[in-house]
Amino acid sequence: MYTIDLNSDLGEGFGAYTIGSDGDILKHVTSANIACGFHAGDPVVMNKTVALAAGNGVAMGAHPGLPDLVGFGRRTMAVTPEEAYAMVVYQVGALAAFAKTQGRSLQHVKPHGALYNMAVKDAALAAAVARAVHDIDSNLILFGLAGSQLIVQGKKMGLQTASEVFADRTYQPDGSLTPRSRADAMVTDENIAISRVLRMITEGVVRAQNGEDIPVRADTVCVHGDGAKALAFACKIHSVLSEQGVTVTSFR
Amino acid sequence: MYTIDLNSDLGEGFGAYTIGSDGDILKHVTSANIACGFHAGDPVVMNKTVALAAGNGVAMGAHPGLPDLVGFGRRTMAVTPEEAYAMVVYQVGALAAFAKTQGRSLQHVKPHGALYNMAVKDAALAAAVARAVHDIDSNLILFGLAGSQLIVQGKKMGLQTASEVFADRTYQPDGSLTPRSRADAMVTDENIAISRVLRMITEGVVRAQNGEDIPVRADTVCVHGDGAKALAFACKIHSVLSEQGVTVTSFR
Amino acid sequence: MYTIDLNSDLGEGFGAYTIGSDGDILKHVTSANIACGFHAGDPVVMNKTVALAAGNGVAMGAHPGLPDLVGFGRRTMAVTPEEAYAMVVYQVGALAAFAKTQGRSLQHVKPHGALYNMAVKDAALAAAVARAVHDIDSNLILFGLAGSQLIVQGKKMGLQTASEVFADRTYQPDGSLTPRSRADAMVTDENIAISRVLRMITEGVVRAQNGEDIPVRADTVCVHGDGAKALAFACKIHSVLSEQGVTVTSFR
Amino acid sequence: MYTIDLNSDLGEGFGAYTIGSDGDILKHVTSANIACGFHAGDPVVMNKTVALAAGNGVAMGAHPGLPDLVGFGRRTMAVTPEEAYAMVVYQVGALAAFAKTQGRSLQHVKPHGALYNMAVKDAALAAAVARAVHDIDSNLILFGLAGSQLIVQGKKMGLQTASEVFADRTYQPDGSLTPRSRADAMVTDENIAISRVLRMITEGVVRAQNGEDIPVRADTVCVHGDGAKALAFACKIHSVLSEQGVTVTSFR
Repeated sequence: MYTIDLNSDLGEGFGAYTIGSDGDILKHVTSANIACGFHAGDPVVMNKTVALAAGNGVAMGAHPGLPDLVGFGRRTMAVTPEEAYAMVVYQVGALAAFAKTQGRSLQHVKPHGALYNMAVKDAALAAAVARAVHDIDSNLILFGLAGSQLIVQGKKMGLQTASEVFADRTYQPDGSLTPRSRADAMVTDENIAISRVLRMITEGVVRAQNGEDIPVRADTVCVHGDGAKALAFACKIHSVLSEQGVTVTSFR
Repeated sequence: MYTIDLNSDLGEGFGAYTIGSDGDILKHVTSANIACGFHAGDPVVMNKTVALAAGNGVAMGAHPGLPDLVGFGRRTMAVTPEEAYAMVVYQVGALAAFAKTQGRSLQHVKPHGALYNMAVKDAALAAAVARAVHDIDSNLILFGLAGSQLIVQGKKMGLQTASEVFADRTYQPDGSLTPRSRADAMVTDENIAISRVLRMITEGVVRAQNGEDIPVRADTVCVHGDGAKALAFACKIHSVLSEQGVTVTSFR
Repeated sequence: MYTIDLNSDLGEGFGAYTIGSDGDILKHVTSANIACGFHAGDPVVMNKTVALAAGNGVAMGAHPGLPDLVGFGRRTMAVTPEEAYAMVVYQVGALAAFAKTQGRSLQHVKPHGALYNMAVKDAALAAAVARAVHDIDSNLILFGLAGSQLIVQGKKMGLQTASEVFADRTYQPDGSLTPRSRADAMVTDENIAISRVLRMITEGVVRAQNGEDIPVRADTVCVHGDGAKALAFACKIHSVLSEQGVTVTSFR
Repeated sequence: MYTIDLNSDLGEGFGAYTIGSDGDILKHVTSANIACGFHAGDPVVMNKTVALAAGNGVAMGAHPGLPDLVGFGRRTMAVTPEEAYAMVVYQVGALAAFAKTQGRSLQHVKPHGALYNMAVKDAALAAAVARAVHDIDSNLILFGLAGSQLIVQGKKMGLQTASEVFADRTYQPDGSLTPRSRADAMVTDENIAISRVLRMITEGVVRAQNGEDIPVRADTVCVHGDGAKALAFACKIHSVLSEQGVTVTSFR
């Protein structure tokens, strides 16, 4: 019996600004990564998003990012491990407080954007993030790219980890994602994308761009929630995986 | 036997900027109000300030402010109760996380600047702040101006409250502070200031500007920490109150 | 022969966030108020919006706001005249630089949101805003609510002013807008709204909520650009006014 | 006859925060680089700093930085050339407006911190910065590290450039500064530092860390202004250079 979690980024509005259709995507995923005010999100939005996730029975986690609202946390920044530690403690603590005021608790932490990407290969940064998560609550699950330093350092810290895979991205022989700058970065055919995910779940392998099957661990799949096409895909992947006998569920 | 708490605002640096002499003032006060990143403070500063307060054996609390860094949280803003609720949950949650990672917990919450001042008379705003504190942790003590709506609404919410008095400010017959814009707002003579505080503690009254004694409850005294003169006064008021048989201690 | 300007707020995106359909509304208005980075807008957005306005042959102006991105500049803040002066110089200067790099110049300045509203009655604040505009470029036209202190102080400063009227808002006998909190604040019937504007332009009066006609000067009409309905109304008011012989044009 | 400019970073306060002793350093330098609100500075501070520089007869320039207040603009960020262009136009435009309102104009632009450092070797970024300066005002002088891409791209754009040297830093054989992370990065002996600068000015060479003399062009020397020691050194280098027959003057 196979199980998989589907996660999506939520609560990315800010003040008068909105992004995504949180209410819609919550019907299809099992874990919600909620923005914490640095790259997106503000206290009022966070409060509402926690309520929305709870109301849909979706497990919630913190989605801490770099302090770069105008860049949506997507621009690499030379932050020190000490700064990364503190910004993760701050953001996770803030979101955990909203969960607590609503009688809930956080399931996981998934770093956002450039913080996530930098922690793929930067062991010191990944260790700082993992230590922050551990120090706040050692029961939190750390989400990171399968095979990344985030997973390595999370395990070292004694944390439960969840290896994340991407349905719409291709992989290099070393297990890294093909950079978006390359023409073959994306898997555009939905059926192929879902087949690949199914294989990652049931066989633990993915076909890399050099044609070889490489091992990959799939605990959770990243699902996008902005736009009609993304929502349709989220619905479809959930259905197909269920039909194929995979239990789609969060970790709690 | 009388007891009193001395509190001071700390952790007001931001990035490369520093304000105050936190290490010095911590030797003289019993409760530290730590800025939470909105009007001052950043994650790294908060982490260090929590360690500093803990290392000095001073009780720590959150000092949430308005989202107005350039105005240091001192400018009145028309925030809704919903916004105030969320910004207090966010900031207190963030600071509580730093305390937790260091094996500590928060004693209290004292709103900062304009948020504090607006909550003196605005019952809806004060209730929102009190509810936020209650929802995060009903054991937190809410600090507010003696006689203010913060104290009234905190009690209504079932919170323990601490009525704050000011050594260097004069009072109006209704118990409010004389506005700083008035020439007679400040008590400049240190001995008179300390005598007034002593009377507030032991007799529960203060001489208002119309010459009448009015009732005032003094659980905690606000002590400033920026500048050599402020530090000397903090040292002096602590000594004199102790000599007069008042136990200077935090609430825990 | 009557003339009128139609103005709309543009460039209100920020980073990954977008608001409004700037390309669409520019087809119907004659003056664009471009956000300057405090309440909305960022340097990249400003650069693009200036190009878009220029490409549509629409006169451009600065739309400076309070430093309150999360509140979209709509929350009243106790800023001093000195602060208001400096924030207007800063924002207008920044936008003027984008215009200059594209071989254009600014036509006007229209304060945004709470800054606009506070300057309706606050003479000192309005004077500070007017002085800032004057000091940057005394040829800039100051937009303000008809009858407001912005217009009064702008004239005192020797500036050309443009009195703004609202098609979708009702008026009080003293010429102020009925507060949005009241049930009768809005004019919901589009034909009535346009008739009222036509009367303001050609007769210089508007029917106030007490049934009396009061004098009002209409140099420019505020037109909204977010949503299909708003765009349709912008198109309609432009057409109807033109058909009625009113020349719809900017001031340059 | 040799001439040299001495420049220093000013206006680095923000709201309640202050850094440096602007009034003191202005007595010793000939060009002031004024922060523009992104890494430091706010509109009120900028207004005051322009007045202070003007009052001291010091030439003023814009000191634009990355949008990273908490990091003081010192952290490398992956900004695109398009973003760099827009952020420089924005900040220089804002500061130019303050100069204009006080009847002054800007002499130069010197990028700050990580933006300056990234533009040493990143030609595309340096070209974007140079183009921004050119598009705002082609008479502005672009300050950059001697031998850097900023100087190369500035010249390509047809701008007047000023090659900057550092009295307190050692140089590598390729003309780059020894990274601060290395033990031999700093020149700590003041007399040696001044001798090196004198040689750069009069002979056009500096002794690199491998013992060879390498060519370096010195149009302006960076002088720090924070702390008593820095101020004393600023005074000393100005005096010694003058005594040695070097004319210490700005470019206008």
